[in-house]
Amino acid sequence: MVVRSTIMDTNSFRAEHAQALDSHTRSLTDKRAKLLGESYRLFYRRPVHLVKGQGQYLWDANGDKYLDVYNNVASIGHCHPAVIEAVNHQMHQLNTHTRYLHERILDYSEEILRTMPSAVNKAMYMCTGSEANDLAIRIAQAYSGGTGIIVTQEAYHGTSQLTSGASPALGSGQPLAPTTRLVAPPDHYRLAGQDVGLWFAQQIQAQIDDMKANGIQFAGFLADSIFSSDGVLPGEAGFLRAAIDVVHKNGGIFIADEVQPGFARTGEAFWGFARHGIVPDVVTTGKPMGNGIPISGLFAQDHVLAAFSDQIPYFNTFGGNPVAMAAAQAVLNVIREEDLQRHSLDIGLQLKKELQTLQEKYECVGDVRGAGLFIGFELVTDKESKNPNKALALDLIERLRDKKVLTSVAGPHGNVLKLRPPLAFQAQDIDWLVGALDESLHELTL
Amino acid sequence: MVVRSTIMDTNSFRAEHAQALDSHTRSLTDKRAKLLGESYRLFYRRPVHLVKGQGQYLWDANGDKYLDVYNNVASIGHCHPAVIEAVNHQMHQLNTHTRYLHERILDYSEEILRTMPSAVNKAMYMCTGSEANDLAIRIAQAYSGGTGIIVTQEAYHGTSQLTSGASPALGSGQPLAPTTRLVAPPDHYRLAGQDVGLWFAQQIQAQIDDMKANGIQFAGFLADSIFSSDGVLPGEAGFLRAAIDVVHKNGGIFIADEVQPGFARTGEAFWGFARHGIVPDVVTTGKPMGNGIPISGLFAQDHVLAAFSDQIPYFNTFGGNPVAMAAAQAVLNVIREEDLQRHSLDIGLQLKKELQTLQEKYECVGDVRGAGLFIGFELVTDKESKNPNKALALDLIERLRDKKVLTSVAGPHGNVLKLRPPLAFQAQDIDWLVGALDESLHELTL
Repeated sequence: MVVRSTIMDTNSFRAEHAQALDSHTRSLTDKRAKLLGESYRLFYRRPVHLVKGQGQYLWDANGDKYLDVYNNVASIGHCHPAVIEAVNHQMHQLNTHTRYLHERILDYSEEILRTMPSAVNKAMYMCTGSEANDLAIRIAQAYSGGTGIIVTQEAYHGTSQLTSGASPALGSGQPLAPTTRLVAPPDHYRLAGQDVGLWFAQQIQAQIDDMKANGIQFAGFLADSIFSSDGVLPGEAGFLRAAIDVVHKNGGIFIADEVQPGFARTGEAFWGFARHGIVPDVVTTGKPMGNGIPISGLFAQDHVLAAFSDQIPYFNTFGGNPVAMAAAQAVLNVIREEDLQRHSLDIGLQLKKELQTLQEKYECVGDVRGAGLFIGFELVTDKESKNPNKALALDLIERLRDKKVLTSVAGPHGNVLKLRPPLAFQAQDIDWLVGALDESLHELTL
Repeated sequence: MVVRSTIMDTNSFRAEHAQALDSHTRSLTDKRAKLLGESYRLFYRRPVHLVKGQGQYLWDANGDKYLDVYNNVASIGHCHPAVIEAVNHQMHQLNTHTRYLHERILDYSEEILRTMPSAVNKAMYMCTGSEANDLAIRIAQAYSGGTGIIVTQEAYHGTSQLTSGASPALGSGQPLAPTTRLVAPPDHYRLAGQDVGLWFAQQIQAQIDDMKANGIQFAGFLADSIFSSDGVLPGEAGFLRAAIDVVHKNGGIFIADEVQPGFARTGEAFWGFARHGIVPDVVTTGKPMGNGIPISGLFAQDHVLAAFSDQIPYFNTFGGNPVAMAAAQAVLNVIREEDLQRHSLDIGLQLKKELQTLQEKYECVGDVRGAGLFIGFELVTDKESKNPNKALALDLIERLRDKKVLTSVAGPHGNVLKLRPPLAFQAQDIDWLVGALDESLHELTL
């Protein structure tokens, strides 16, 4: 039986919280309720009204300063001057589409493809991770001739109809596509002692077999290698290889969704898949790619892409435009110049060590795991049972918000803190975060 | 029998043209072939390498100046200082997502909703027109309980799987969804003498009946009211009303795709649907909304939207972020301050008048039609037969390119010049355009 969460019942403001708000915040939440579609959800029972960002810090309308331990879009830091400058410069020159020649898209493609295995040799650009994954699934289907897509039980891959149908994290209101199959995620914490790589490969094989039994041809496996929505499950580098072998043996492709782990985030490699020594068939990118300027990418092996592009036209008006490419280029430059991959590895290790002292101190901290600056901090009722403690996790992020530390929760039970700060996060920020966590846990559990 | 074009066989550079290129252009086209997915297509047998834009003008790498008579993304003019300044200012402050409170999205929503009928009272934001239309179709389906979508024979509504399945303009390589039905477009030129409004309403009814006969429940009709891809078919204001009545009588919704006619383009109204006095259920916007910064919107009647948003979460990471909203706000301000709707109407009329002198002069110019600065210029073999002359249209745009006038073709036969300049287009530009057209037609036909 597959667990499907209801996304409503997580870190979010609801009408019942409105009474407790100050009048300024209340006026904004009322205006949102009046003007915006009801799908819009705010973080926190007491939403935050942000007006300024810089590096790893954010400020609200009262001038209060927050530590951002959640946002990976402004990955190289909020309002990074290199991106502002690049965008401003290009906006003064030209911003048009890719049916005219322009050098930026070519220069960037050359550089970004150099960070990938040589078999991944073709670039395409869109505006969002959803658009990249939507196209990736269509490519998998065109290449394989099948329709069946495997994702993990709490995966999130996008907001278009096609990607929503492969995003169980959206909850039971969003029907999965009849050709989507779910596998349990590689939860090393609960599978301790097992060969998780082998186990996970068997899960994939079982779903491929189930497809066959139901007359569905397998097209591919789509996953972000850090299993962010499943609760941040990096596992040891390399364990994914066996699963990808199974995918390929069965004629499917592996789509590495790098919207979460990509662009040096994991510290161990520039890409999440690279931690595992895997060669993906298709790579999709998004969020951190332009540090907030909408740009996403799809990178593929030419022979995999050909089945789609020989047959179906694809043109994305804004995708790959000179301003978006200027932003993306600036991000790439900064990651190199500031050596952010190394930084993410070093600071991530330091942070994890400090968080592990909390794990020792508190019965409710079941697991601390991560790669680079992407860390899962799992709350349980007790270490013995490992039962998820969602209520505590939700109270904890509200306490952290009160202590001006912004983060949120992940996982099917919403009991894992997703600690994913901008890579500008520094050693001196560790005390703020760990101190706030320690105090909050003390207040909530002792 | 439905005509479906092959998009490949239109205004585009193909490998066979490479020999004739100068070495600089050749090096760029070679690099594109090597690095980018094969879906990427360039305009023109001799592609243009653009490096600079300003208002209605573009410059190539040689310093040659072009008149832009095609691009509606940079709708208020290439590199408009108001947008550059607004984006730069906001990028220095903050750029984050909508799960925190921010005033820009609220201020903009308030203003943009004021331009629409009062029943359209909820706003949502994405990054591309495709994303807006993808969501709009899902809303139609959630609201109606049906799946059937009607579009015109050469419609283009986007690049996601769902919108591609409702975009016959993509050609026969892209399968239409089994629940998509096509209607012939309201081609006043060929239906001269008929009550086109009534005729079109009957086409819609016939497809709804066909759905019923095939067990498909009707969900909605999706159209841009200027029928851009069908060959730019504005028709007289008001003629669409009968069709929309049929849509509503049959329990479907009307989605006004304003990616093409919206934001003052038609001169006669701020929105394409408003020319017809229609109240849409859902309005989608895109291209010109941020003058090149990726932003799109979906505006809906609350009771129509509710069926979707009560059930399905929707969050678009970049959608509605402060920088995108700053760009959109600047565009809206400029349209007002520069009175671009009136300008579009006035200059559009002047331009149409001049183009009609060419229609009188040349047997091959079958029709000149338009609303504001959105004009279709149709090439035929002769005025009597009205047979589409695609070869001439394709030669003509290449000649125009040689005379530094940029445009392209539309319609199922690719024989209609789509004249859709930035709204910054001025009276003094008319001579350049009409002169180049006159010379080219003279060279090609006499």
